[in-house]
Amino acid sequence: MPYIDLPAHLPGITGLLEYSQHTAGPIRELTQILLRGDSTLTQGERELIATVVSYNNECVFCTTAHTAAADLLLGETETCEMVKNDIDSAPVSDKMKSLLKIAKLVQISGKAVTPEAIATAKENGASDEEIHDTVLIAGLFCLYNRYVDGLASVTPANPEFYQYLGERIVNHGYNRLPQGYDHLKK
Amino acid sequence: MPYIDLPAHLPGITGLLEYSQHTAGPIRELTQILLRGDSTLTQGERELIATVVSYNNECVFCTTAHTAAADLLLGETETCEMVKNDIDSAPVSDKMKSLLKIAKLVQISGKAVTPEAIATAKENGASDEEIHDTVLIAGLFCLYNRYVDGLASVTPANPEFYQYLGERIVNHGYNRLPQGYDHLKK
Repeated sequence: MPYIDLPAHLPGITGLLEYSQHTAGPIRELTQILLRGDSTLTQGERELIATVVSYNNECVFCTTAHTAAADLLLGETETCEMVKNDIDSAPVSDKMKSLLKIAKLVQISGKAVTPEAIATAKENGASDEEIHDTVLIAGLFCLYNRYVDGLASVTPANPEFYQYLGERIVNHGYNRLPQGYDHLKK
Repeated sequence: MPYIDLPAHLPGITGLLEYSQHTAGPIRELTQILLRGDSTLTQGERELIATVVSYNNECVFCTTAHTAAADLLLGETETCEMVKNDIDSAPVSDKMKSLLKIAKLVQISGKAVTPEAIATAKENGASDEEIHDTVLIAGLFCLYNRYVDGLASVTPANPEFYQYLGERIVNHGYNRLPQGYDHLKK
């Protein structure tokens, strides 16, 4: 049961964004820019960053939702699982492996990011913008994961909910849906 | 030296917000709402939350800047130091002590926030909104601290810089300054 009086029919982050709409605006906008805006990283790659951070923060709601989104964008379910468990084994580029490792370090702490991790990313072709966006996406999900779990928002057990949410994220992005669309149920 | 090519004359978060202006917009807006918007928590109390999280994330830039802001808002320098080292000893209300303890738990992890910590805050008179805002401010500074340190932005050693930044935060808030104002130097 959530620590505060959240809308009962909206689990996880969805209820929090509804509860506090004035803060939800810039949170949604920042997420839309980082995960859906113009970037040399694909949307699927950026969802992998969101997933690996959420997974290491042990946030079940965010991990499951962004796994669903990444799987839909990548067209398969294996890569995301491999990224969670062993980045080096995953079928992603060397550049992406080094960016995912930076995201994992950011999850621990900003201070955990080493010059060596950055040098490897640059050797593998990562641009300053890609490194910047990786660090900021990882930071954003450290916010999200704490927001969702710090207020004990509801984590549905039903896999279909996350499939629905993943489809919504992929098809509509992170902006607020128009009235009438927001009928997600547990 | 920063990991990416940041404006040399803008240290810490200031260079990052200049480097990536499209993401800076919603980050600034979220911060302005949470730390300066209408709230039953004073601006000084909210700066204490920002400070205690930054301190526990060992982010020297953010800790020093928000300590300066809190000190200016509170009109003295002792409370903020006491909050960093021993919340129970600080001359703040019991409600504020319990909210600061929640913020410290959020710094560790969303999952670290216990029903007992929330119950104590409610017994001490904290509203749902105050608990919500405490968790979200703590989450936001977990983002900021990782952004600042994860890209190794410059941390000035000069105390006068932080005094200047603290005054800017107190007098102008977190929105972007008009052209001509943003002349901060190390």
